[in-house]
Amino acid sequence: MKTKLIMSVLLLIVSTVAYSNDKTAPMLVEKQHFTTKNFTTVSGVTLSQVDVGWESYGTLNKAKDNVVLITHYFSGTSHAAGKYKADDALAGYWDALIGPGKAIDTNKYFVISSDTLVNANWHDPNVITTGPASTNPATGKPYGLDFPVVTITDFVEVQKRLLDSLGINKLHAVIGASMGSFQALEWAVRYPEQVERLVHVIGAATMDAWTVSALEKWAMPIRLDKNWQQGNYYNKERPLAGLTATLLNITQDAMHPLIYNASFPHFEVLDDDALQDIRTLPKVNQVLEARALAKAKLQDANHVLYLVRASQLFTAGRSANLTDALKKVQAKTLLLPATNDLLLRPENVRKMHSIMDELGKEVTISEIAGGWGHLDGLFSITPKAQQISEFLAN
Amino acid sequence: MKTKLIMSVLLLIVSTVAYSNDKTAPMLVEKQHFTTKNFTTVSGVTLSQVDVGWESYGTLNKAKDNVVLITHYFSGTSHAAGKYKADDALAGYWDALIGPGKAIDTNKYFVISSDTLVNANWHDPNVITTGPASTNPATGKPYGLDFPVVTITDFVEVQKRLLDSLGINKLHAVIGASMGSFQALEWAVRYPEQVERLVHVIGAATMDAWTVSALEKWAMPIRLDKNWQQGNYYNKERPLAGLTATLLNITQDAMHPLIYNASFPHFEVLDDDALQDIRTLPKVNQVLEARALAKAKLQDANHVLYLVRASQLFTAGRSANLTDALKKVQAKTLLLPATNDLLLRPENVRKMHSIMDELGKEVTISEIAGGWGHLDGLFSITPKAQQISEFLAN
Repeated sequence: MKTKLIMSVLLLIVSTVAYSNDKTAPMLVEKQHFTTKNFTTVSGVTLSQVDVGWESYGTLNKAKDNVVLITHYFSGTSHAAGKYKADDALAGYWDALIGPGKAIDTNKYFVISSDTLVNANWHDPNVITTGPASTNPATGKPYGLDFPVVTITDFVEVQKRLLDSLGINKLHAVIGASMGSFQALEWAVRYPEQVERLVHVIGAATMDAWTVSALEKWAMPIRLDKNWQQGNYYNKERPLAGLTATLLNITQDAMHPLIYNASFPHFEVLDDDALQDIRTLPKVNQVLEARALAKAKLQDANHVLYLVRASQLFTAGRSANLTDALKKVQAKTLLLPATNDLLLRPENVRKMHSIMDELGKEVTISEIAGGWGHLDGLFSITPKAQQISEFLAN
Repeated sequence: MKTKLIMSVLLLIVSTVAYSNDKTAPMLVEKQHFTTKNFTTVSGVTLSQVDVGWESYGTLNKAKDNVVLITHYFSGTSHAAGKYKADDALAGYWDALIGPGKAIDTNKYFVISSDTLVNANWHDPNVITTGPASTNPATGKPYGLDFPVVTITDFVEVQKRLLDSLGINKLHAVIGASMGSFQALEWAVRYPEQVERLVHVIGAATMDAWTVSALEKWAMPIRLDKNWQQGNYYNKERPLAGLTATLLNITQDAMHPLIYNASFPHFEVLDDDALQDIRTLPKVNQVLEARALAKAKLQDANHVLYLVRASQLFTAGRSANLTDALKKVQAKTLLLPATNDLLLRPENVRKMHSIMDELGKEVTISEIAGGWGHLDGLFSITPKAQQISEFLAN
């Protein structure tokens, strides 16, 4: 049991995608490319072209009313389920939930997910996104910090154009974890008549000072890296040390001591190398740093800064008043915070539930138990599969 | 009430010393200077000279058996109570506890506290310490990273020499918060026959992987600062940006959303400046950064790195087995963890209590309630004053 747990932790930290216990042939998926022109951001800048990747599982029915949109988390991609190739080491992050006969049943639903704008994983060959690392058509060079600040609302608007291009104008459900929950809620507030169901996992409805500050801690190491150069590092040395520190922060913030410590069963506090030289990291930090560096190589530092900012500026419906925003929701709503979440704290979701409940909305809250902390939304979701399945069926 | 709370938060963040509501004349204290020669660290390096500052409150009795030693926290100094000058803005951090007629009654006890080795506040004129910023007598230049790694045990050994120089060989009690609790416990394990009472506040008995990683997050921004230069920044530009980021991390890790958010009652998530330019920090971060920078100017970045390492390597008695270490304690023990502590988590102190209890030690645990998180050990300690007073009297 402990070995299995530890293996899971290792898989997680290397890849941040969930493992699948599926013994049958994997669901194979194909990454697709969506392009749209003249996209004006909430911050008022018009991008002449936006490209994002997307993928889908299951079949769109004739009425085009069996659509479940999955919106991804901060470090995530469109790859919510299945494998690109049969021999991929890992399946998409919610493969335990999405597939034929699973809670989000691809025999019934057409499940679709897209990469967000400014997706972190710029160097992942399966990711297509538009952000500061993209070429600015006006200059022929990467945008860098000339790329406009983008918001969760912009992420939703790009998804809206993608769905419009497929002739889809009704969502059976929108489901997202963490930053994905921000997008899912934004869908339900912005397009209340088109969203029938909302599943909001390890999420938030708005930001508070605590969370804005916590997110800024993810930006600081990148800006401190001498290679960052105010974002002008393209075709030069990348700010990998700063990005690695950022990913160490993210990893720990997304976890909880319970499983974090369990993943270091041989931890020894009497670390003689660290005692002998201040330049030598404690062994536990050496292990974590090597893992974070491997992940950092797939990401773009500026994209991470833009994701931090998009998250910091999130508030449902871009309304100064949360109750006013939640008033607009017509979707039947299922809130799934994680009890041990130290990043997006469950008390904020309980408050969101109270507000929606008092507004007479059809809203249910059900907490995810587990020792992962925030990541329980990915790794301890299986006990909620039945509830999600029934929620979608009714 | 809310205004008072917010004022307290502001005072805290600027200075990290507690406010005193004392209307009477302040207890005036004088900083003193202790020098010792040929000090060999746990890491095996002999320093030809060590200097630390100290101060005391109350009078040493003839038998020299009324001594209460206070060991300070990570960002702290010897200044536990009183004021250096009558018009000082703030009294020492535990002035609510220490003074004539207070829980740690200076009419009864001779209370003494010293700056640790590698004290963070190198540029505070009231601090005397020895560390990487000190002049290496062998070269006439600052040690920088040639300074040996020092441990909590070394901090205790310097205090031991200070007490020896005063002819003190018995402690009525040793009391410390946070990193101060590490030193206090180390005293009780290392010199069991000389420590009669131990008060261990918002502390730990050993480190786990989670805490070692959390502490490393405080070191990372300093090392990333281009001015850090592998620690060789003396007489050059200081790594203030990195140190400021470090202090932002420390401030947030030491707090809890409850009071953190209450200290920003006018927080607005719709921050138009932050929306218009990625280079502009959200307002809340601008405020926090200015405060952290002011604090950073008083500190030395290398000293902070050494404090991180000393904390990461802490385990009671430098024993690989915690139970073996705790077995040595003869002091009557009072454990005061904070229920909402997110940094040194109360569950670890509950475990320490169980171990000591099973070993048949005279140990009491009493949790501090409050909305500050870790800082409840400083700011919500008053409800424990009576308990501490009785603990010391019996």
